[in-house]
Amino acid sequence: MDTKKITYLGIDGSYSHLAALEYFKDDDINLIGVKNFNQIFEKVQSGEADYGLVPVENSLAGSVYDNYDLLFEHDINVVGEHYLKIDLHLLGIDSEMPHDIRLQHLSKVVSHYKALEQSEGFFQKHNWIHKEIYSDTAGAAKFVSDQKDPLLAAIASRQTADIYGLKIIKESVHDNPHNFTRFLIIGYKKNELKNSNKCSIIFTVLHLPGSLVMALKVLSDNKINLVKIESRPIHGKPFEYLFYVDFSWDHEQADKVHDILQELKQNTQTVKILGYYKSGAIANL
Amino acid sequence: MDTKKITYLGIDGSYSHLAALEYFKDDDINLIGVKNFNQIFEKVQSGEADYGLVPVENSLAGSVYDNYDLLFEHDINVVGEHYLKIDLHLLGIDSEMPHDIRLQHLSKVVSHYKALEQSEGFFQKHNWIHKEIYSDTAGAAKFVSDQKDPLLAAIASRQTADIYGLKIIKESVHDNPHNFTRFLIIGYKKNELKNSNKCSIIFTVLHLPGSLVMALKVLSDNKINLVKIESRPIHGKPFEYLFYVDFSWDHEQADKVHDILQELKQNTQTVKILGYYKSGAIANL
Repeated sequence: MDTKKITYLGIDGSYSHLAALEYFKDDDINLIGVKNFNQIFEKVQSGEADYGLVPVENSLAGSVYDNYDLLFEHDINVVGEHYLKIDLHLLGIDSEMPHDIRLQHLSKVVSHYKALEQSEGFFQKHNWIHKEIYSDTAGAAKFVSDQKDPLLAAIASRQTADIYGLKIIKESVHDNPHNFTRFLIIGYKKNELKNSNKCSIIFTVLHLPGSLVMALKVLSDNKINLVKIESRPIHGKPFEYLFYVDFSWDHEQADKVHDILQELKQNTQTVKILGYYKSGAIANL
Repeated sequence: MDTKKITYLGIDGSYSHLAALEYFKDDDINLIGVKNFNQIFEKVQSGEADYGLVPVENSLAGSVYDNYDLLFEHDINVVGEHYLKIDLHLLGIDSEMPHDIRLQHLSKVVSHYKALEQSEGFFQKHNWIHKEIYSDTAGAAKFVSDQKDPLLAAIASRQTADIYGLKIIKESVHDNPHNFTRFLIIGYKKNELKNSNKCSIIFTVLHLPGSLVMALKVLSDNKINLVKIESRPIHGKPFEYLFYVDFSWDHEQADKVHDILQELKQNTQTVKILGYYKSGAIANL
């Protein structure tokens, strides 16, 4: 089996890294962590990497707009999607102090601002603990590991604890257990339509009443499931929009998808087909 | 004329402050700057303020999602909208140094990260200048004024220069001149439908193929202009959405808006009418 080069954001234990490990679990892979989303797109577009993973939406925080813009600007293909369950745990260095005593004396917790925000209930209950924002959860875990201070903790994934030799002081400190991040897998090569059941497109419509509905009606008239619609501003045309649409189909509808895309072209101003792929599953809901 | 109490984000010279001055230019007003968006909603909901201004969208950066969430969570009314043109200028303290010499020796520019990002061309041309992120543009201007260092500058509005006694070193350092921010004006009291030509609503639909189109078709079948659609995740229901829709109508359509809203109720799961108002104008496009 050929080794696949996979690129994603962050260091070992980042949520993107975990998503890469889950999605490519049956493959022989070579992992390339990078520092920003743009590098992921560049490496895939140039062929330097075979695949990249980009988060596009979190079920609590909403869409990751930078990546929607990058999808429009680059010549890449969407070839898959993956839903990663986000669990947030309180991690610290190994210590003989019992967990409950340690919690009472904990001075500071570091993490990504979204992870701190999504653990607000924990901080209200333990209101003596100072919060500090870190650029990413895995980096915060590494920082705690390096500092060797038992009264310092990070909020990060369970896997991050293993990677940086930390212990879980308190499990599941997040407020809301329904926390998922959707990743798109982007590739240098296009997937074939026939092995897919989902498609992502970007389109524009004329700035006229009813023109968005006319485009979406192509899907609903054909009983095609509109999974998600997202709008992004067009630079230089204030308050006109690009529409990002994901739609999926049942096995028996597969034959007409090509025609539906042709019909969409006739009912929009421009269409960019990002790619065809197999829809991912949300586990343990 | 009664004095109106108006609340908005930031200190004197913030873009929200400028929007308040423009929108209420003919009124006797008492301005109350606050530190976060939530306080604006709280003050209007409690009746402590008559009106509040909240930015919901920038033509380059996209939507301000925090405010979409706050609109859903609070019992307030949308009573107006205002488009503010965003011009970014390079401001410094008064100095005898000629502007071109000063630019060549400038060591640091402070501003909000979006303003720095939207002036990328300027920084590429003047690549010796160090960028530093500040929480807001008006605060950055005040900081430059306080520091009294002629080689330190801020990127902020023209009005901010007047307020903090700064000079414009270089005009219009932004990359894109089509830069507008749309503000919603929220109020304690509801506007009447008859004096309005635009409406903002939030709705949910059943998680079934075609259900979003069924709702939007109510507008298009009635030749009503769908101005904007935005989706936000529903917490606790991963990958189900609240839809925020703005629509406007012509004078001769005004009589049927009430019936259209009834029809929308029958074609959605839930509808929250945020309010009726007069549409704002985008100046100098």
